[in-house]
Amino acid sequence: MSATLDRRAFRDLSYGLYIVTSLNGERLNGQIVNTVIQVTSEPARVAVIINKNNLTHEFIAQSGVFAVSVLDDTTTMPFIGPFGFRSGRDVDKFSRVQFKKEVTGAPLVTEHTLSVLEARVFDRVDLGTHTIFIGDVVYSEVLKSGNPLTYHFYHQVLKGKSPANAPTFIPND
Amino acid sequence: MSATLDRRAFRDLSYGLYIVTSLNGERLNGQIVNTVIQVTSEPARVAVIINKNNLTHEFIAQSGVFAVSVLDDTTTMPFIGPFGFRSGRDVDKFSRVQFKKEVTGAPLVTEHTLSVLEARVFDRVDLGTHTIFIGDVVYSEVLKSGNPLTYHFYHQVLKGKSPANAPTFIPND
Repeated sequence: MSATLDRRAFRDLSYGLYIVTSLNGERLNGQIVNTVIQVTSEPARVAVIINKNNLTHEFIAQSGVFAVSVLDDTTTMPFIGPFGFRSGRDVDKFSRVQFKKEVTGAPLVTEHTLSVLEARVFDRVDLGTHTIFIGDVVYSEVLKSGNPLTYHFYHQVLKGKSPANAPTFIPND
Repeated sequence: MSATLDRRAFRDLSYGLYIVTSLNGERLNGQIVNTVIQVTSEPARVAVIINKNNLTHEFIAQSGVFAVSVLDDTTTMPFIGPFGFRSGRDVDKFSRVQFKKEVTGAPLVTEHTLSVLEARVFDRVDLGTHTIFIGDVVYSEVLKSGNPLTYHFYHQVLKGKSPANAPTFIPND
């Protein structure tokens, strides 16, 4: 089967870049995610895909809530770094970033962010290495106008890499 | 709850634009979809979200296979039109478009297309108005290099609209 798979084809799929967060009691955590999509309009529902090894996965699975910040194209690699390549098990990712809380308690990062939303999980799909969490949106707000950061821009302009835990990781990329 | 939802926030989420196809015996059908994402790397799996009212939904649900063509930024509105705003119940969408078949029999549209892939459904999620079909990728190929058509470009440059069946439809948009 692998002879008929050219994994370079997957690179042509388009994504944005987001910080997805959750909480466990007083503890907050979040990570960079490229796979956030709206799945229905009525009711407003979104899906996020998270690697099972990540602390954010543990927090969402337990709390049943998550928040999303839509990053803009002013986002820098030093800002992305802690959320993309460090584990919340080792560092407190929220000690130096601006955020607020609204409905669920999951932190809404407000720096380099166009819009934020929060959701309560109503279904999840086990994908082996990852889980799809599907949530009812309970809060959404536009913080400012601007251009969304795209995964393409992240790779081409910011020269960012895909960590091995990403659903779109390409071996030997 | 609606008082805390600003649906303009959803417009900041990023998507590509794709033709998703399937088959029912000899009959072929396909439609424009913005919600195609890779969900895991090992094994290579993708998810597509389709409105239950669409003929493509019926074909995928019955055949258990679907194909995706990743459109490029040379795509024109006259090309999109039949796939985006006409039903396969009324017109044969494949009478005037170039396509090929590989593994599953689902047609791979090759015009204005950077890459193609085919998948066999292994799980589906009922979302009320829509279904998420999750498939194992059994064929993928890069046809040419270029820039993927994004949902943002479709709206801003091609002046395209979101039909009411889209998961990202915004009432009064």
